[in-house]
Amino acid sequence: MKRTHLSKLKPGKTVMVQGWVDTIRDQKSIMFLVLRDREAKVQVTILKNKMPEIAEKLEGILTDSTLKIIGKVVAAPQVKLGGIEIIPASVEVTSSAKVAPIDEKSSVDLLMDYRWIDLRDENKRAVFQVQTEILAAMRDYFVKNKFIEIMTPKITGQGTEGGAEVFEVKYYDRKAYLTQSPQLFKQMAISSGFEKVFEIGACYRAEKSYTSRHATEFFALDVELGFVEDGHCPMNCEEEMLKYVLGRVAKNCKGLLEQLGVEIHLPTGPFPRVTLLDSYKLLEDERGYIVSKAAKGDLDPEAERLLCEISREKWNSDFIFITNFPSSARPFYVMRLNDNQKITQGFDLLYKGVEITSGGQREHRPDHLRANLVDKGMNPDDMQFYIDFFEYGCPPHGGFALGIARFVARMLDLPNVRESTFLFRGPDRISP
Amino acid sequence: MKRTHLSKLKPGKTVMVQGWVDTIRDQKSIMFLVLRDREAKVQVTILKNKMPEIAEKLEGILTDSTLKIIGKVVAAPQVKLGGIEIIPASVEVTSSAKVAPIDEKSSVDLLMDYRWIDLRDENKRAVFQVQTEILAAMRDYFVKNKFIEIMTPKITGQGTEGGAEVFEVKYYDRKAYLTQSPQLFKQMAISSGFEKVFEIGACYRAEKSYTSRHATEFFALDVELGFVEDGHCPMNCEEEMLKYVLGRVAKNCKGLLEQLGVEIHLPTGPFPRVTLLDSYKLLEDERGYIVSKAAKGDLDPEAERLLCEISREKWNSDFIFITNFPSSARPFYVMRLNDNQKITQGFDLLYKGVEITSGGQREHRPDHLRANLVDKGMNPDDMQFYIDFFEYGCPPHGGFALGIARFVARMLDLPNVRESTFLFRGPDRISP
Repeated sequence: MKRTHLSKLKPGKTVMVQGWVDTIRDQKSIMFLVLRDREAKVQVTILKNKMPEIAEKLEGILTDSTLKIIGKVVAAPQVKLGGIEIIPASVEVTSSAKVAPIDEKSSVDLLMDYRWIDLRDENKRAVFQVQTEILAAMRDYFVKNKFIEIMTPKITGQGTEGGAEVFEVKYYDRKAYLTQSPQLFKQMAISSGFEKVFEIGACYRAEKSYTSRHATEFFALDVELGFVEDGHCPMNCEEEMLKYVLGRVAKNCKGLLEQLGVEIHLPTGPFPRVTLLDSYKLLEDERGYIVSKAAKGDLDPEAERLLCEISREKWNSDFIFITNFPSSARPFYVMRLNDNQKITQGFDLLYKGVEITSGGQREHRPDHLRANLVDKGMNPDDMQFYIDFFEYGCPPHGGFALGIARFVARMLDLPNVRESTFLFRGPDRISP
Repeated sequence: MKRTHLSKLKPGKTVMVQGWVDTIRDQKSIMFLVLRDREAKVQVTILKNKMPEIAEKLEGILTDSTLKIIGKVVAAPQVKLGGIEIIPASVEVTSSAKVAPIDEKSSVDLLMDYRWIDLRDENKRAVFQVQTEILAAMRDYFVKNKFIEIMTPKITGQGTEGGAEVFEVKYYDRKAYLTQSPQLFKQMAISSGFEKVFEIGACYRAEKSYTSRHATEFFALDVELGFVEDGHCPMNCEEEMLKYVLGRVAKNCKGLLEQLGVEIHLPTGPFPRVTLLDSYKLLEDERGYIVSKAAKGDLDPEAERLLCEISREKWNSDFIFITNFPSSARPFYVMRLNDNQKITQGFDLLYKGVEITSGGQREHRPDHLRANLVDKGMNPDDMQFYIDFFEYGCPPHGGFALGIARFVARMLDLPNVRESTFLFRGPDRISP
């Protein structure tokens, strides 16, 4: 007999259902049990005298055990749960649960130790149902626009982007590293003539960051476009993509968003694009806020928060691009302006108070790359493997990366990326 | 001025085009240059006397350099390439190529050293264009069928599936490992009530295998289904998904498949399902082939090849499921038959001569898992972190994994997974 999902039950039918024991009300002569599957719940009513075998099987059963039930669906107007109940003919306990080791009072750490039980909360699961639609919409956008999907290696033998914070892997008799991002490889794909590429994959950062927006392993959307004119080309692409994604999620995830109490504010106009210097001025003029000295050349978290507030007020946009970051605050591979080597084609995208993207046009000319490395106090020879990607011809190109967990957390107003990460990885957490 | 793609050129228009120098024919008073982008090529004609500045810029330029050209498209019936040519008004060399270090005579190893140049071959790129459609079709199938996409960690602190062949990661002050597959985590999602999940992600095997079908890093589709009845449920899911994928690729990638000289044989009936013992009999009866002693309890590569030949002949199917593998040849977590502990609900799927999938129903009952571990000579306490996933209730479940590069290589008749892998990783290869 084929399983009937609980959302499809109709009175009068004999069905086989499977699900979790949600609640149990065990009385002298009757037992009420609510069974749930992912989409719905139903009451199962056991008359103990009439069904002694079934009653015996269910004696002492705990919530979150799983059952397979064959029985008849009958109309039961008194039952609040859809006005129906199941009268079972046979019951099989497919899994016996022990008492759950966590409840709503458990510490964050204990909840993470038992993440698989924590995720049984339908609101926590809903995050990943919405995320499924977000990822699908992103990929659809790129596939429709003829991007090639690439799956780049996460293990690499060569130094990565020049940063120090990489995880080392024992690779047979030698050392390898986990990549911080597909940056170098997606640029390589442009050099291969792929023209437009995307990937959603894992990134690794061996930082000791304990914030609400950092993880040692996270998943990012990486995009790279060939034959761009400047940093605005990847911004145009990202903006168009995000508008498509937001529109689709608002449309296809209505129920889940309602369940989570989230409303998606659909952009009505272009995302504002403000240079970093203008953003400093905006912060001072509109909020009297002066970016901390330590962050000069960049933004601090409070500045990001305020700029998004201002963007919403002035331009009705949850998003705001910050452009023209100084070369001192950007990696060597970001292209600098022709007429001002101190300013780059690099940008960030802020969304609801948090940076979710870095991007820009890349420097694709080997001599300029070497000069940038020297300018950064690095040895160009150490990055020759990367400069090589551009020695045999490579179109001007640019792109961006967007952290999935950050984006999902912002969209769903979650306070921490841990909540939009299936299994969080941090400096002190590598299990389960 | 916005870029016009070379496939969209119309005589009479002034356009800006960007692309690669494909060929150069430099004569005394005239220079013919073919420019290519991802989709098309066009001839650019430079009359040296009339355009001395442009001629000077292009003097000595090598193929695979990139150009940005503004010019007029004119009808030129004598030009084989579409009957048009571009008469440039201005040319910018956006990237100057050096002489390529590889050609068609280069060794496989040298080609891999310069993979980004190797991939400029339009047939090699086409593999990834088809792969993009394959991945999109797979995900569409799962999203339409209400699976939740999960992105599971590739770094784990706990031993993985009990196998020894894992890569070790230096994780701050302790040891971590790269996961061999999302097996344990996708089962965890079932225990979380996600009911149906999928992931396309990276897997790591620290084996020293040098074959045409192994890599140390590869990408796999992983699927897990809750509330299954037996191993046939995941087989049904995989079969339906693959039929959808093949149909879509045949329809949407016509041009690319033609270019590659590949015809996709669409399945007309169900994929045959043959028990391992019956497959031995089939091999003996139909081909006089006896599986090598070493492979008893499993198949050897020659047996896989022959079974697919037989499947095509007898059932008109490129696919064949082999079922009922013995428990001795399957991991501890595969469910065994109720009435025969020596036989499991585990299966393989073969496609055009090669195993592309392992799957099965999983053992979700803690006491049975412990017994299986003891039977395998393992210590159940070492796997308690995993058994814990099932202690607090977990539906019966099953699933499968399919190696993407293997599947793509089979579909496109490529001899080696290296050719369907963007950047191959093997025991001796971690660059570029």
